Formats: sequence, C-alpha cells, structure tokens
Amino acid sequence: MATTVQQTTVQQTPPDPTTADHVRITLDGRWREVRDGVRDALLRDEFAPHHTPDLREARAKTLAQLRLLAESGYAANGFAAEHGGTGDVGAAVTSIEMLAMSDLSLMVKAGVQWGLFGGAIENLGTARHHERYVRPTIDLDVLGCFAMTETGHGSDVQSLQTTATYDAATGEFVIDTPVPPARKDYIGGAAEHARMAAVFAQLITAGPGEEPESKGVHCFLVPIRDEDGADLPGVTTSDCGVKGGLPGVDNGRIVFDHVRVPRVNLLNRYADVAEDGSYSSPIDSPGRRFFTMVGTLVRGRVTVGGAAGAATRVALSIAARYALQRKQFDRPAPKGDATAPGEVLIMDYLVHQRRLLPLIATSYALAFAQNELVGRLHDIQTAENVDHRDQRELEARAAGLKAANTRHATRAIQECREACGGAGYLTENRLVALRADTDVFTTFEGDNHVLTQLVAKELLTAYADEVQGMSPVEWMRFAATTVSDIVKKRTAAQQIIQTILDTRQDNEEDGSLFNRGTQLTMFGDREEYLLSTAARRLQGASRREDDPFDAFNFVQDHVLHAAEAHVDRVVLEAFVAGIESCADEQARRLLSDLCDLYALTVIENDKAWFIEHRHLSVERAKAVTRGVNERCRSLRPHVLTLVEGFGVPESVLGAAMLT
Amino acid sequence: MATTVQQTTVQQTPPDPTTADHVRITLDGRWREVRDGVRDALLRDEFAPHHTPDLREARAKTLAQLRLLAESGYAANGFAAEHGGTGDVGAAVTSIEMLAMSDLSLMVKAGVQWGLFGGAIENLGTARHHERYVRPTIDLDVLGCFAMTETGHGSDVQSLQTTATYDAATGEFVIDTPVPPARKDYIGGAAEHARMAAVFAQLITAGPGEEPESKGVHCFLVPIRDEDGADLPGVTTSDCGVKGGLPGVDNGRIVFDHVRVPRVNLLNRYADVAEDGSYSSPIDSPGRRFFTMVGTLVRGRVTVGGAAGAATRVALSIAARYALQRKQFDRPAPKGDATAPGEVLIMDYLVHQRRLLPLIATSYALAFAQNELVGRLHDIQTAENVDHRDQRELEARAAGLKAANTRHATRAIQECREACGGAGYLTENRLVALRADTDVFTTFEGDNHVLTQLVAKELLTAYADEVQGMSPVEWMRFAATTVSDIVKKRTAAQQIIQTILDTRQDNEEDGSLFNRGTQLTMFGDREEYLLSTAARRLQGASRREDDPFDAFNFVQDHVLHAAEAHVDRVVLEAFVAGIESCADEQARRLLSDLCDLYALTVIENDKAWFIEHRHLSVERAKAVTRGVNERCRSLRPHVLTLVEGFGVPESVLGAAMLT
Repeated sequence: MATTVQQTTVQQTPPDPTTADHVRITLDGRWREVRDGVRDALLRDEFAPHHTPDLREARAKTLAQLRLLAESGYAANGFAAEHGGTGDVGAAVTSIEMLAMSDLSLMVKAGVQWGLFGGAIENLGTARHHERYVRPTIDLDVLGCFAMTETGHGSDVQSLQTTATYDAATGEFVIDTPVPPARKDYIGGAAEHARMAAVFAQLITAGPGEEPESKGVHCFLVPIRDEDGADLPGVTTSDCGVKGGLPGVDNGRIVFDHVRVPRVNLLNRYADVAEDGSYSSPIDSPGRRFFTMVGTLVRGRVTVGGAAGAATRVALSIAARYALQRKQFDRPAPKGDATAPGEVLIMDYLVHQRRLLPLIATSYALAFAQNELVGRLHDIQTAENVDHRDQRELEARAAGLKAANTRHATRAIQECREACGGAGYLTENRLVALRADTDVFTTFEGDNHVLTQLVAKELLTAYADEVQGMSPVEWMRFAATTVSDIVKKRTAAQQIIQTILDTRQDNEEDGSLFNRGTQLTMFGDREEYLLSTAARRLQGASRREDDPFDAFNFVQDHVLHAAEAHVDRVVLEAFVAGIESCADEQARRLLSDLCDLYALTVIENDKAWFIEHRHLSVERAKAVTRGVNERCRSLRPHVLTLVEGFGVPESVLGAAMLT
Repeated sequence: MATTVQQTTVQQTPPDPTTADHVRITLDGRWREVRDGVRDALLRDEFAPHHTPDLREARAKTLAQLRLLAESGYAANGFAAEHGGTGDVGAAVTSIEMLAMSDLSLMVKAGVQWGLFGGAIENLGTARHHERYVRPTIDLDVLGCFAMTETGHGSDVQSLQTTATYDAATGEFVIDTPVPPARKDYIGGAAEHARMAAVFAQLITAGPGEEPESKGVHCFLVPIRDEDGADLPGVTTSDCGVKGGLPGVDNGRIVFDHVRVPRVNLLNRYADVAEDGSYSSPIDSPGRRFFTMVGTLVRGRVTVGGAAGAATRVALSIAARYALQRKQFDRPAPKGDATAPGEVLIMDYLVHQRRLLPLIATSYALAFAQNELVGRLHDIQTAENVDHRDQRELEARAAGLKAANTRHATRAIQECREACGGAGYLTENRLVALRADTDVFTTFEGDNHVLTQLVAKELLTAYADEVQGMSPVEWMRFAATTVSDIVKKRTAAQQIIQTILDTRQDNEEDGSLFNRGTQLTMFGDREEYLLSTAARRLQGASRREDDPFDAFNFVQDHVLHAAEAHVDRVVLEAFVAGIESCADEQARRLLSDLCDLYALTVIENDKAWFIEHRHLSVERAKAVTRGVNERCRSLRPHVLTLVEGFGVPESVLGAAMLT
C-alpha cells in the first residue's frame, strides 16, 4: 500500500446545511420529534447552562427546573396509559437523555424521580400503588428517592443489609438499619427533597408455624419526611455534602430505626406477603426472582449511558468549534509562494485531528447503538409477552453500553478540556462542569467493571437461569463446568450485515481496511475467539486450581476483554445500520467515512491482540495506523458538519470562548 | 514459558516498617530533610486539607497559608545568598512539590510568587532588581504575578502581542495591550492579590537615528495595583472566575493602556536599553536570546511536574488503602474447606490490582526521574559555568517529564476516584479535588503536546542553536535538511546501566522479560529506532511535499511517539539508579519487582509497535501481558508497604472513608 501524503492545508469549510441536517436526522433516530421538543424546551431562559456552586441554591434551581418540566407534562411518557401516563417508554428515556445537554444535575433529578422512583412503582408495584402514586409522581406531588445502595454494598445488591421484617400482629413491615454498613448512601434526593423512598431491603417473614427467614431483597415504599421536610420518627437522613460534580442533586444517607410501614407498601408485583405473614411469589428461584425485579429497572442504566453520550456530544461540539477558530504557530509559505499564510488553525494539525476526530466517530457509533438499545427497550417494555431471553439480552446490552458510553464520556470530555488549553479550564466554557458532572456515571447504576463482567457472564453462560444471583467467582465456576454454548446473536442490523459479508470479495488479510466487510469480520472474529478461549481457560483453570477464587482471578482480565469485544461489535453493527437508514447520499458517504475511522480506531487500540492472534499481519498492522491518519485527513473539512450533526442547540453550547 | 497460577488469596499483610522506611528514604532522595521539614509543617491545623468552594474565602485562606510559610522562612532557598536567600535551588523546588500533598492551590500560589515572579527577578534581573525586590518577594511584602500568557497566544510565547515601547524623551517604557488578543489571561494572582506583574512584552525601541523596531519578547516589572488593591491608572484587571479547580488561586486578566514604567524596570540581565534608546545584548541571535531568558525559568516547569507527581501519590495512597478495607462479593470456599471465607477484599481481584499497581509503579518511576531532574537543575543553577548544551538538555528533560508527570496524574487520579466508587466522588474523600486541581497541569507551563514536541525538537536537531525560536514546521524542516546526528545521552545512571547491559547473558528475544538488561535494551532500541526513522521520514516528506506544513503534518504523530519513547527510557534508567541507591536488601528487592512492573507496563502499552518492528515476537508479546499479571500478583502483599513508601503524612490523607 503506497503511502501518499494528502493535502491537509484545508481552509475552514462552511458546513453544508443539507448534509448536516441529514446527518442530524439520521442520528436523531426513531424519537426525533421528542428530541426536537426538548431542544425547543431548552431554549427557555430557565434552562440556560449555569454555574451554581452553592449547594442550597443549586438544588433549589434544579428542583424549580424539574417543576417546569412537570408542568409541561414532560414525565407522562414513562408511565402506562392505564396508570395515568402515555406509555411511550422510548420517548421517556430519550427526553431524559436530551436534558443532559443542558444540565446533568437536572437530568439526574429527573432520572431519579421519574425513572428510578417512578419506575420502581410502575414496574414493581401493582394497581394499589399505581392508583395512589403514579399521578403524584408525574406531577411532583410526591417527591421520591431510590434507596438501594448502602455504605457497605453497592455493586453486590443481593447482599444489602437493611431489613424489612414483617410483624403479623400489626400487619406492618419494620424497616431497620441493623448495622452501620446497612446505611443507605449516596441516594439522590435523600439529603433534602424526597418525601418518600423506594427502599430495597431483605424481606424477613414467617408464615404460620414457620421460622422467620429472609426471602431476599424486595422494594418497599417508606415515607421519610413530613410536609415541612423534617425527618419522620425513626428516620435519620443526612447529607453527603459536596461532590465532584452534580451540585443540583441532593445526595444523602438514610438510617432507619424500626420504622413501621403498612403491609401494602411492599411493591408486590413479583412477590407478596399475606396478612398472616406467609410469603408467595410466582417465581420460585430467589435469585431469578430478584433479578427479574431488578431487570424491570433496566431503564435507569439505559438512561445513564444515553445521558453520558449526550453530554459528550456537547463537549465535542465545543472543542471542535474552538479548534476551528483557534490558531497557534506560524505556517511557513509553500515553496514559490511569497504570501505569508499566517498562523495555523489548531484543527489543521494532524495530532489535533487525531485527538478529536476518533472521539467524534466513537460518539456517533455509540449514539447509533444507544438508539437501537432504546428502541429495543421500548419494544420489550411495551410488548404483551416478553421472551425471557430477550429481556436478559436487553439487560446485558444495557450494561455493556452503559459502561462503553460512560468510559467514553470521561475520556472524551477530558480530551476536549485539554484540547482547549487554559480556556478549557474556565467554568464559563462549560467543559469542566460536563466533565465533573459525568464523572460519577462510570460508577453509578453499576461500576463499569462489574457491568462489563455482567456482559461476559451472560455470553459465557448462554443466559442460563441458574447463574442469576451468583457471585462472579461462582458464575465463572459454573461457566467452566457447563458445556460452552456461546451464542452470537446479531443486532437489529442482521440482514444488512449479512449482505455486506456475503458480497465481500476479498479475504480478511488482503481486503482493504476501508472495506466494511473486512472490518465487520475482524470485529466478529475477535469476539468469537476471545469468548471461546475464555471459556476454555476457565475450564482449564478450574481443573487445576483448588481455590475457585484463584481460578477466577487467573482469567478475569481475559473475560472482561471478551465482553468489551462483544460490545464493540454490537456498536459497529449499529453504526452500519444507522448509515443504512440515512436518506441522503452525501450524508451517507460522510457517515461511512466516519464509520471507517471508528472501526480502525477500535482495531488500532487493540492492535497488539490482533497481531498476536494472527488476525493482522505486521505489515497490515502498520496500515491500520496509516488508515486512521488518512481518515482524519479526509474528514478534516467536514468537522463542523459532523458536530452540527450532533444537534446540540446553540442555547446550551454556552461557551464564552466561542466567538 | 509455563503459565502457573499464583496463590492470590493473600490476606492483608501488615506493612513491614523497616522495608517501608527504607523505601521512603530511597524515594525521598537528596532533599529528604526538606521533605521531612514540610511534612512536619503540614501537621499544623492550618494546612489540613479543606474544601472551600467560595472563591473569596478560598483565596483568603490560601494567602493566609502562604504568609505562614513566609514567616517560617520557607522561601529563602529559592534565592541566591547574595540576594538575601540561601541558594538551595533543589530544596526550593522540593519544598514546593511537597505542598502539593496538602493543597494544590497553595502549591500554585507559592510557585507563582516565589518560583515564577521571584524567579523572573532572580534570573532575568540584575543587582538593581535583586537589591530592591528579592527580600520583599521572599517576605510577601511584594505580591507578584507572572504575566506571560495572553488570550491569543499561550504555547507560542514568541508571538505575544503586548508591547513595551521605549520613550527616550522620558526614559520610560510604555506598556500597552494594542489588540484584544494581547490581553494577559489566566494569570495567577492577577485577579486579586498581586501588586506587581512580571510582564512579558515585545520590546520596541530605537537607538539614535534608528527606526523603532521590536527586539523580541522581554520581561518588565509593572506595578498593577495600589496599596488598597485598586487598579493603577491605565491598568484594568478582571477575574477569570470559577475554574475546574484551584479555587484558592485568583487567576485573572490584565489589560494595559499605555502604562509608563521607568527604564530600569526592564529585567536587564540578557539585554538592556540605554537612556538614548539603543539596544544591547550579549546574545546576538534574537531567538537564542529569548530562549536563554525563558530557559532560566525552567524551574516552573520542573515544579509543576513534581507537584503533579506528589498529588498523584496522595491519591494512590488513598485508593490503595480503601482497596485494602473494602470488600465486595462472596468468596466461595476452596475445595474441601468448610469454613465460609466471607467477602473478597477488592484489592484481591486481579482487575483491581491491574488498575492500581501499574500506576503505583509508574509513580515510583516518575518520582525517581523527577528527583534526578531536580538534582540536575540544582547543579546547573548553582554552578559557576554552565555548558550551553547541559542547559538545553535540562530544558528538554523538564519539558518531557512535566508532560509525563501531568499526563500520569490526570489518568491515575481519575482511576483512583473510580476505584473508590461512589465514595470516591464525595469531596470529603479528597480524590475529586486532587483530580480537579491537577487537571490544568496538563496544559499550563506549556501544553503537553507542545512540550513533547519540544523534546523531539532537541533530539532530532541535536540541540542545534539555529532551531531556537523556530515554529514546529520550521524546525522539522531544519531537521529534515541537516545531517541527522541524533545524540543519545545517558542519564545519571550511565555506569550502572552499562554494567547491567554488559553482564547480561541472554539476547533480546530470548532473555527473560524480568531481566533488567532486556528491559533496558528494549526501551533503548525503541527510542533509537523511532528517532532515526523520524529523521528519515522528515527528509523523505520534505523532498516530496511542496508545502512544508503538509510534510510536517505527515510525521507529527511519529515525532511525538519518538519523544515519548525517549522520556520512557530516561525514566526507566532513573528507576534503576534509584534502586541502586537503596541501602536495604529487602527494600531493593521490592523496588526491583516494582521496576519490572513499570517496564512491562510501558512495553505492554506500546506492544503493537514492538511487534510491528520485530522487537517482540508474537509469542513473547503474550508473555508481556502474563508478566504484568504475574508482577501484580507478587506485589499484592506489599501494597501497603508501597504506599507507605510514598511518605504521605497521615494528616493530609484526610479521606473520611478510610477507617
């Protein structure tokens, strides 16, 4: 492959409005009208980006914004029509994602109130809860919080230590914090605003003649504050204080001292306790029961990933625009040209292109994948009957994309900050707040490493029911001792992908790296190889090691790598499907080049693996890096079109340095 | 190489006080007593870590802390004995570095007042300035700021647009901001505290019978505020407002409207203007003159890198301690063992080890390299005669290590934050502030990409005088057209390294990856190969391309990679020399294992390059990853010893979550 040097001395090309529009329409996807609606809403002065470091002010402002949204009927989509909503799940998730473009504190508050607290009532409750609480939740007449995480246990939710002990004598549950690590912690809304908590606790009960025992973690509605905001008897709330970001979210702690709530406050869709204390559930296995409950709350995880993606697109829009106005260092005149060409736009430096363009490409890729995920969530949560396996796959994909989106956000927003130098460090230019606010997204709604492990678990155990509720060490032991039957399920893009692969002429090693079939094959082969060898290594280690923890530890990094390769493949396929959905030829060509850059960036980041496992020759590996550089150069004139395609409303770009 | 699984189910090993002490003594290095002195000073309540988001309060507190330091005679080391100090440059830099363990705002304020403002007077001024200003600067009777960066120009300092025009009629310089981009920006101290500024401006003058012309950028002392803090006539200061961190630093902007200062306010060590306006300098070349002046200010860059390193060691101390107390998920019992082993310490997970241990190893490596750099700085700045080339090498090394230290800080502190989950996001646990405060270090005192390019420039042009003052495109063109004569100068560890290489038995491909000679050879070969091929590619591109900017852009990423490889080699050699300086056998063995982890981590991160360029076979490449895992396992029992070796005083660990 000849290495030709491209002309890179492009001048700033004005964005082609038609192409940018088509790109944006394609990226907006199925809930485009919802996105446009939020874009319009964000034009109001009340939603302009603001810096409010004082916690009390910031929290008050965020609550006031939330009330504005509630008044405009913003929250109805998240709830079924028969409970008082409209039942458009995809619209609900998309509209919360779009809030992230304006203010992440507001996004989190909306997510907690309507997505987590409301979602618990909607999905874990029954008619008695829906009738009483859904409408007030939508209207903010009940302000709620989602009290799951404890000081001692975050990722391992099954080990929560708060207890809800049924007292048949009074027909009440007694909610208690028996030990300090059982304190509810980091709970959004618990410090100040919430009046009621959806509390996850070990349900302890005894039917007639039985010994009391824990039936596992269930969810209970527990009033925590009175009208005036004072703690109710037995409830002690406190404030987590200042955090790395999200000043508008009042995270707090809750300690319960034998707080009594009526029996009907158990959200009893999947399990109930009768007046006499006997326990019943349509799901026999405690593990499966618990994960069925938690599974209905998948929306939170989907929302966090989407919001991280939206915030990242704002940051990239700011940094790219800055790079298109900022100049530094003289450009010498070409030979034989006497005019002084002046200083160089920093976007014209190859290294600056390599800093921003692969991130832009990845943001597109993840946004297409997120759109697909939201569509799937909507279809599953609005369907009459849901295939158990589809639900499991949805949960795994939500976990994987949440990790991918939030990891990308942390890295990309930081790069944007640095790419704007000292100006990027000033709050008036928004980047530091976007960075600080999204920081915690990598660990909340599940730590990214734990979530990535969850993806591997589902793939390596072929979605086996038995593994639900197993600790990492346990499920890996299970995977090692069962016949490996790894399922590679195609994404929604199945047909398109198959056509691309079938019509590909060249083989993997010789095919152009810009050939989509070659890229898809490389992604798919890597995933298959990593998964099958992970299964084999688990078996081997399990045979050799006496201690199952050692066996687990021996392959933990390999298992995570396999899961990441899976997510990469899902994302690439979603990008391909996204391009296919674009109506405009020019926009499609642009997105196709961008997809090359995404694919080659992923391959470049894992290049050593591809070489080591003979999926890339040494010569071809060098061509990957040249390919990334080549696509950076060819996409350079289209940078503004690409960030306009993100559809970030100008009103929330809000960076003082942009002229 | 057989893959054996190590026993990883270690219990927390109490730190061996002797080993930890020896490690700390080794790492403390030449200015150990200075470090201990600051550790003692930081025990005072006034220096306890605090969270003070209100700008006015934070600035006042930082200034009060600075006054406490001044009263204790803290600042005398940075100034020559004949000017009123003690002349211990290494001690001055080390003591500012140590402040970073307590509060980065304080470190920056001290760095600005004594390092930058004081350093400009000390190094660019002459007796008339020393006599009048050094003592008041030490005592804080004069509060200063360092007004170099402008809104329009940061990295490219030679293009600053502020003017200082000499008026022979009055014997004054007229300081002016002729266009908006010439506004001084992000200047620490300019918003509130500074009374005087060291202003960098284009010196314009005309000798008798000459036309006025710019003699390039020079430094002038300009009073900016009166006793009461009001702007002096012609001076308009303003506030940069809230930043991503460093709330105690009052960054601001300065605009000058024909402000007159006496002729003697020119810091005239390297150039002077006579009463009649005639200009003289002992250095003929304007480029060399400017860079000689700037070169004397290298201390700032050294300090920033050191402070970033110190802050990172605090973060790693916190995150490692947390990982040694936090448990999550059950550990199943080994076969045949009936006792329930309980939950797993998160430090026992391989993936958690891989997250923290390579960062700890890198922190050690960089700290040893920083110690060597400070020693060299001290020796050069206290010597009678300095070899021009030694000075240039010092500057390049300061640039390279500043980039390496600050890049590591941003990445490592973020990883620490995430490794502590939700707790890591609370301000009370310090990590978010360490992260936010150090964030700007990647771009101030020179953007890291620009600094890395500077390293390449010095190496690829063999420290040629002509290149000083050339833009990146120009010097790369110079490098392409001169005979490549790349100098690989050994670090202070020269003799030790040579002995290791000479006594090495095995060759590169077969030698154990844990063999220091093998590691050193791999680092050295990579550097040489990258530098020599960069030179060749520059020549080739320069011949082929009409536009020198295109030629430059074609190899920019390669050039940066070469510079990074150089810095990696320097750092590894410093680590080797550091181990050699350790008196205790057990501590030496521990550091040696840690050095393996550092070396293999660097190789792993660039593994694809090593394979592509036949410095690693495919099979051996896999052994690199196994080697990293192996060292993570073998170092696991020593985690506490290793972070105790950082010598972070308990009083500033200050994380509420640590029990």
